[in-house]
Amino acid sequence: MTTYDWKQGYARIAERGPFVYGLTNYIAANLSANVLLAAGAGPAIGAASDWTTTFPAGANAVWINTAALMSSDEDSLRTVARTAHQAGTPWVLDPVAVGAGAAKYDDFVRSLLEFRPTAIRGNASELIALAGGAATGKGVETTVDSSAAITAVGEFAARIGTVVAVSGPVDYLSDGSRIVEVPGGDVRLTRVTGAGCALGALTAAAIFATGDALQGAVVAHSAYALAAERAGARTKGTGSFAVALVDELSLLNEVTE
Amino acid sequence: MTTYDWKQGYARIAERGPFVYGLTNYIAANLSANVLLAAGAGPAIGAASDWTTTFPAGANAVWINTAALMSSDEDSLRTVARTAHQAGTPWVLDPVAVGAGAAKYDDFVRSLLEFRPTAIRGNASELIALAGGAATGKGVETTVDSSAAITAVGEFAARIGTVVAVSGPVDYLSDGSRIVEVPGGDVRLTRVTGAGCALGALTAAAIFATGDALQGAVVAHSAYALAAERAGARTKGTGSFAVALVDELSLLNEVTE
Amino acid sequence: MTTYDWKQGYARIAERGPFVYGLTNYIAANLSANVLLAAGAGPAIGAASDWTTTFPAGANAVWINTAALMSSDEDSLRTVARTAHQAGTPWVLDPVAVGAGAAKYDDFVRSLLEFRPTAIRGNASELIALAGGAATGKGVETTVDSSAAITAVGEFAARIGTVVAVSGPVDYLSDGSRIVEVPGGDVRLTRVTGAGCALGALTAAAIFATGDALQGAVVAHSAYALAAERAGARTKGTGSFAVALVDELSLLNEVTE
Repeated sequence: MTTYDWKQGYARIAERGPFVYGLTNYIAANLSANVLLAAGAGPAIGAASDWTTTFPAGANAVWINTAALMSSDEDSLRTVARTAHQAGTPWVLDPVAVGAGAAKYDDFVRSLLEFRPTAIRGNASELIALAGGAATGKGVETTVDSSAAITAVGEFAARIGTVVAVSGPVDYLSDGSRIVEVPGGDVRLTRVTGAGCALGALTAAAIFATGDALQGAVVAHSAYALAAERAGARTKGTGSFAVALVDELSLLNEVTE
Repeated sequence: MTTYDWKQGYARIAERGPFVYGLTNYIAANLSANVLLAAGAGPAIGAASDWTTTFPAGANAVWINTAALMSSDEDSLRTVARTAHQAGTPWVLDPVAVGAGAAKYDDFVRSLLEFRPTAIRGNASELIALAGGAATGKGVETTVDSSAAITAVGEFAARIGTVVAVSGPVDYLSDGSRIVEVPGGDVRLTRVTGAGCALGALTAAAIFATGDALQGAVVAHSAYALAAERAGARTKGTGSFAVALVDELSLLNEVTE
Repeated sequence: MTTYDWKQGYARIAERGPFVYGLTNYIAANLSANVLLAAGAGPAIGAASDWTTTFPAGANAVWINTAALMSSDEDSLRTVARTAHQAGTPWVLDPVAVGAGAAKYDDFVRSLLEFRPTAIRGNASELIALAGGAATGKGVETTVDSSAAITAVGEFAARIGTVVAVSGPVDYLSDGSRIVEVPGGDVRLTRVTGAGCALGALTAAAIFATGDALQGAVVAHSAYALAAERAGARTKGTGSFAVALVDELSLLNEVTE
């Protein structure tokens, strides 16, 4: 996939202006919504009343960050996953903090695989744990490098028939047969809360915009990597970096050279 | 209403330092609180324990963003609306995403009209839907221009005896007999999550500060429009714009010319 | 305690990279997580499934902001406090808005003292109310200066055998026998929502890093005061100030002179 490709895919998000619905945790919700808005998508978030049964069917794409359990019940997450699956709405699973030591939570996260997510994204610890490997997480952080997850990612993608993306110094994305590497980014992405979660939301929008799960994941991860590099080049602290990341995502479609 | 008027009304928020209590969604809560603090009000948010029965009576103003249902139950919202109404505390209703396809949610939002909000604010799709028109929303976004809602806004305000404000390229505000236009702002207001929700919170503070529902709504919308213009003039991306919006609101009372 | 001391203690947070788990309100959650990340800690927040029973035991430090009740039930807060207490994990209590008029909420906050918080932080109104004095709060804001709480802070710390820290123009911290003053900061800290809450989270991280409750509280409050001063010196509005505060916390460990 050339650089040209993903930029076109990213531009299609703003052209199509998809309605993207998500359940996520309240730490990451604001940044996730702003990342989607920056890309030109229209987000709605939360299990308010019958949103869970209507929005996943009406939306163009859906994402579920399982830490949404901190303010919504298991039924709500299951309903959103089931409704998206049955309606044919592409949906992204972000199994945040799976494998960090909360066994009941981990079991619930795994149970959502029944509704066949279109893509799954997380850090190395999370994806290794979700794929059935050892628990290596420390809260929501990974203790292993993304490269350690390459094999697990490919096998896991093949086994459950979905696209799997692992974030790290280099991101690795696989549909079970191919593995795509997305280098770049900035280490400060790991020091901005919800930056990974927001990438899951952006992946959902890009899958709709491109009409393809792997291509959408590549678009979202590539846009994120470039925006993070640009943000990193013009800021020092982590607060400014987070603001600049959203800026750069909102300006990516402008001709800059 | 002259420019002079609304600036005086805005300055009165900081002079009086009202305690403004709200229920809102967790995506918008942070920005709403920071907008209130920027204007000089003291916010508290959330249905924590008996806050719902005590704070609406003790507060100077209240706002309810109905997407608060994503982390609070219907009883909490109803209790806050009822308590504010019975205590004579002015309260603003923000019917976010009404008319976007979630019928049960829409019914609940309409049921809050029983507690006679002092003002209602939303985008064109939301206010048309709330007034009984066709559903045209796409999640939390409008698909129609604010000008399309002028008639509905005026009639709706007259019918239920409240002030209604519709946000858009031009904001239209009505008390049922007059319609006030507030031009200005910046298109990036639609690309910052919770910007509209925070305007509802600011409207509540301004209604208390001015002692008048329509005047308060004009103050809040005018301050927002000018702050957004200033923020837009000195930023490019949507992340910086959001930060600058809060900056400008916090600096509006300083003599600048 | 010299300037040298607290900077060393602050640097130890990044060196040790503690996993800090918290329950807090959704207005402050994002800033709290970003402040912890800026300091080099790894935060996880929220009562998602069995996180409440596992994370307080596995974490290096815990904080509870009682406004977490706006999205979690009393049992969750109690479970986190009890689990931290029994596991010997240091934990910080932030009794936000206690004494503001919600008696049932106040009673619940006081009931958490049973689990012997390692430190308590709040503003003057909150700490006076928690110590059994008159209710003087206005929502989440204080109506009295921190100096008015000096005596109450010292006596309260001695009585319940914990470290107590009151935020204000000058912060006062006591372990019941000594009182430490931390001057500095910036008045805009009171105009950024969740700034105080995030200080509670940082205090938890610093207590773990230093291995001492009073020293940890001094480290966190001193770092905050210096970061706020630096942020205040290079920004005007409250939006930029909040971003710069996180920046400065993330840059404090860099050699700057």
